[in-house]
Amino acid sequence: MKKSYWMWYYGDYEIYHYRELNLRRQEFGHDYPTLWYMSSPYISVKFTKDFMCDEDGYAICHANGKGVILVDFEKRYNYGEVIPLKKGGHFLSVEVFNTTGLPAAYVESDVCPSGEGWKADCRNSKPIDAGWHKWYDSKDKNPENFPFEYETKHPITVTKLDDGELYDFGKEMFGYIDIKADTTAKLEVVYGETDVEALDKENANIWEDVSGMTEYRLTQRAFRYVFIRHSEGKILSVSAEYEYLPLDYKGSFVCDNELINKIYEVSAYTFHLNSREMFLDGIKRDRWVWSGDAYQSGRINAYLFADKDIVKRTALGLIGKEPIMSHLNTIVDYSLLWIIGNWEYYFTYGDAEFLNRIYPITLKLLDFCYTRLNEHGFIVGNSSDWTFIDWAEIDKTGAVCAEQMLLAACYDAMAKIADVVGEDGAVFISKKDALIQNIEKYYWDDEKHAYIDSYESGNRNVTRHANIFAIMYDLVSDERKQIIVDNVINNPEIPQITTPYFKGYELDILGKLQRYDVIESMITSYWGKMIELGATSIWEEFDPDQTGNEHYAMYGRPYGKSLCHAWGAGSIYILGRYYLGVHPTSAGYRTFKVEPHLGGFKYFKGVVPAGNGEVRVSVDENGVMVWTNIEGGTLVWNGKEYPIEPNVELNCK
Amino acid sequence: MKKSYWMWYYGDYEIYHYRELNLRRQEFGHDYPTLWYMSSPYISVKFTKDFMCDEDGYAICHANGKGVILVDFEKRYNYGEVIPLKKGGHFLSVEVFNTTGLPAAYVESDVCPSGEGWKADCRNSKPIDAGWHKWYDSKDKNPENFPFEYETKHPITVTKLDDGELYDFGKEMFGYIDIKADTTAKLEVVYGETDVEALDKENANIWEDVSGMTEYRLTQRAFRYVFIRHSEGKILSVSAEYEYLPLDYKGSFVCDNELINKIYEVSAYTFHLNSREMFLDGIKRDRWVWSGDAYQSGRINAYLFADKDIVKRTALGLIGKEPIMSHLNTIVDYSLLWIIGNWEYYFTYGDAEFLNRIYPITLKLLDFCYTRLNEHGFIVGNSSDWTFIDWAEIDKTGAVCAEQMLLAACYDAMAKIADVVGEDGAVFISKKDALIQNIEKYYWDDEKHAYIDSYESGNRNVTRHANIFAIMYDLVSDERKQIIVDNVINNPEIPQITTPYFKGYELDILGKLQRYDVIESMITSYWGKMIELGATSIWEEFDPDQTGNEHYAMYGRPYGKSLCHAWGAGSIYILGRYYLGVHPTSAGYRTFKVEPHLGGFKYFKGVVPAGNGEVRVSVDENGVMVWTNIEGGTLVWNGKEYPIEPNVELNCK
Repeated sequence: MKKSYWMWYYGDYEIYHYRELNLRRQEFGHDYPTLWYMSSPYISVKFTKDFMCDEDGYAICHANGKGVILVDFEKRYNYGEVIPLKKGGHFLSVEVFNTTGLPAAYVESDVCPSGEGWKADCRNSKPIDAGWHKWYDSKDKNPENFPFEYETKHPITVTKLDDGELYDFGKEMFGYIDIKADTTAKLEVVYGETDVEALDKENANIWEDVSGMTEYRLTQRAFRYVFIRHSEGKILSVSAEYEYLPLDYKGSFVCDNELINKIYEVSAYTFHLNSREMFLDGIKRDRWVWSGDAYQSGRINAYLFADKDIVKRTALGLIGKEPIMSHLNTIVDYSLLWIIGNWEYYFTYGDAEFLNRIYPITLKLLDFCYTRLNEHGFIVGNSSDWTFIDWAEIDKTGAVCAEQMLLAACYDAMAKIADVVGEDGAVFISKKDALIQNIEKYYWDDEKHAYIDSYESGNRNVTRHANIFAIMYDLVSDERKQIIVDNVINNPEIPQITTPYFKGYELDILGKLQRYDVIESMITSYWGKMIELGATSIWEEFDPDQTGNEHYAMYGRPYGKSLCHAWGAGSIYILGRYYLGVHPTSAGYRTFKVEPHLGGFKYFKGVVPAGNGEVRVSVDENGVMVWTNIEGGTLVWNGKEYPIEPNVELNCK
Repeated sequence: MKKSYWMWYYGDYEIYHYRELNLRRQEFGHDYPTLWYMSSPYISVKFTKDFMCDEDGYAICHANGKGVILVDFEKRYNYGEVIPLKKGGHFLSVEVFNTTGLPAAYVESDVCPSGEGWKADCRNSKPIDAGWHKWYDSKDKNPENFPFEYETKHPITVTKLDDGELYDFGKEMFGYIDIKADTTAKLEVVYGETDVEALDKENANIWEDVSGMTEYRLTQRAFRYVFIRHSEGKILSVSAEYEYLPLDYKGSFVCDNELINKIYEVSAYTFHLNSREMFLDGIKRDRWVWSGDAYQSGRINAYLFADKDIVKRTALGLIGKEPIMSHLNTIVDYSLLWIIGNWEYYFTYGDAEFLNRIYPITLKLLDFCYTRLNEHGFIVGNSSDWTFIDWAEIDKTGAVCAEQMLLAACYDAMAKIADVVGEDGAVFISKKDALIQNIEKYYWDDEKHAYIDSYESGNRNVTRHANIFAIMYDLVSDERKQIIVDNVINNPEIPQITTPYFKGYELDILGKLQRYDVIESMITSYWGKMIELGATSIWEEFDPDQTGNEHYAMYGRPYGKSLCHAWGAGSIYILGRYYLGVHPTSAGYRTFKVEPHLGGFKYFKGVVPAGNGEVRVSVDENGVMVWTNIEGGTLVWNGKEYPIEPNVELNCK
């Protein structure tokens, strides 16, 4: 029998899971909807296939929803019935409606199995190729269920207190808490990323009171600590059913610096916890999908899991459906980063089909962005938009420079995307050129030797952000880059970045500019300090000058900070991209370079996933070894280039 | 305590009920989704109110969904909690999400009761005034429940047959069938609009097999007959719980012709059965909402129930949400009739607020229609559009004339709508003028003295349809109208209309042209013949030349025809509009005329709802009596005009 897969309207699987996961946020005993607009799947989809039977065959259709099957436009069948298909041509129309979930169909058949080759019609535009995924390959695997895996975890310590017990699972965790007690009296279960949070129900983000039973399985949540307060009886056992998406650790990095090895390991764990249906920002507090966070996650993923699917799922969930009448997550920069990220996705994996799929809605997003341009072509947030950029004191009066840098990078990405999908991208190149001219005119400050945040406020405030983007997206000359490094990046008077998010971008430009000394000192002093403070996952923000519980506060709340934030994992990208030095030079690693730099290490070795294979690099004071199982590689070492033959170790002094 | 009402995002109540009712269709044991795209309510809505408390107050919020309440942007509450509101200014934000139904909120409060004055924000465009309705005035009245009423009905005859019993309820009916039996063995319940259908399970549209219990309440369906086949035991009782929307019969017409009185009565019953959440096409088979059918229903409603709400509910359900990428019901003419119908709604009831509410999406619908224009500005259906017009042999090659007539009427309506909402409608007048010139050039046939269906086919086929629209919408001169009547309408060689739908339009132009003799003969010969054949409701189509069970067949199926079709009720409009002669001359009956015509009757009397009152008219061979309780009326009688003083009988010889 031929293999069948559940199918849906392309993009709706992602829209469904994006919606469901974003609406699961709980906080202080409340249910929290997202701040932003979210789409839903189409409620009624017609799956069709036009095909020839070389001999008599059959089909049995199954639906996630209700509906009817039409054979050859006429004969009607119900789901579950055996449909005889005589030798000859046939047209099957499998109609499914479902107002609450994901309309989907599964066709068991020797002649027309569901999946590839089927069309999906939402009745509001032309039929398109149906969406499907190899995960959903039997009729019992409903695509509304996300294929997580589970492992039972036990607390590593239990601390008895006057009014209950504090369970420490040793590190940040996500899953169901299972409790057995010898009483049906009330248990107050308080979750904490820290012990102080778990012990402070009034200020803790997440808690749940239960009673009336002796065994409980609580809904999935994140925690390291769980405190159970109870006035009578005994807790017999507490364990966690850890829930995770199985992902291959394809990338790696090990060096002589144990602190950096630890940072890598904690970063990878942080990143894995947040890599689920989609890239989450943090695992505990909001568990939402944010486009800018996802952009950085896409870069990290390329050097760790190289999981294409999660990038696509995230992008499709975020963009949703037409009409686009607000920014992604309401954030100006996050709309732009969505487009830039899709280009980087393509450049990493060479998946032109995805760019083709999303090109129409990308144009709609851009059309929406055009409604926010001012007379100079600068993008400006209106009262319902959020100009985020970073948690930092940026002068956000009027058109903000960092946004214009992203817009220029976005035009650049659009020109290249258009080229891939066979459209003319010249218009985007013109837009980019005109924009860059205006950026120079309005934002470059010859006295400060830097781009200022705002030309409208008159404050001439300089932050690192716009200046970092200018270098990161190659929007300025090499000479200008050097001026920026000297006057902004290495200027202690310009406030330091406080989020690992933007530290990631800052490290990226330091890598581009080969400032290895600064990179290592930044990683060890910033990330390293968090580890020294006992972090088992990387935090949302970190200010080395804070002390004690101050570290856990944010948004005006004592435990408001996420202590497991995906954007903390940027070191993985930096170590793979600039130390192992592996990066594509044409889309999908058709060609690629390996430009290792030992920096301040005595040695390191690691793996970078590349195309359908991988690249292994090890470097020490004696030289470099590179091995790969794919074509197209070039080693750059000591200023010279060496072609890398697949499956042969290449050693250079 | 102040009165509170459930509130929702304006339009979503209608979109929700439109979706639910359209997806209830069952046929031959299958569930049938609509052929067309349908929207869903927004899944996450924020209701807000900015207000002053003159003294301390409180609020308790209730949600249809989950979410959180924010007071003054900061303090969070759950649904059901008492929220204290101190004297002073406050901002309440009531956030509700619901992925399966209708997100809605209800706020009990002495200072900020929900309903008028609240805003709703879907997070994808600016907040708008929330939707609410007087029906939903207590927290127990969930707006997902439509407020139908119920009456128990008993069959008027039971006929014992070999394999079961046939129950006749005397006329078409809608509701739950309740069955009690002394056996738990299988009962086959077959529904029929006719006895032959109920007795022919294989071809019947609707049936249900039940077993395992002795009492059943089956889901709501339409029927006149129910046959219960069973091989053992006895049926103890069968009754129906009739489900209906209570509506005031504001209009009436009684005359000396008993057949016409009967036609009026059966038409009114037919129309009431189909007037529910929205205007349905037919009560039994598809129970769908079709824009063209609803257009005609809007005209009938104006002379019977004058229920504004059902017109608005229908219009809002049909248009749904952006993006508009297909015609309403996929039908070219039905998009255009939606716009024309909204103008007629405004002109009847004077409800400018509704035009303002729907103006933005009306422009989107028109934008979509523009994507279907050819080089002459003619609207053409593409392969995914349905050029319906009527069930008739129309030459639908390329651009079809009847559609262009509707497009011209649509531009005319748009110009007037734009004027009401304070926009400039000049562009629509230019478009109309240009279109009419091209219609003359391409469709008027000087030899046939008629508009031909298609200029592209070369067939020069003439049907009544385009010619009727030309007169109905005053798109041609009076002289041209006369030419059309002589060469098309009164020309027996031009095929007769076979649907009451288009008969309604044909009667309308006969009324405009004061051809009372033809009207009466058409009503008595066409509708009268149906009544003579025993119709208890008006049929979807009627061909007087058919015999016996032929009448029930349509769409290639023996009982495919709906025998209770709203568009059959057009006589109500004709008798009110052209015999009682009451019609507005400015929007909302601010001014109106009463132009009664006795026609071939000896006498008639009746009532027409008008503005906030009504107009009573009676005419016999001695003269006319008019009475009204509203201002602005003018009686036109024997070529003279008489102002009508409210609350005073006006008699003219």
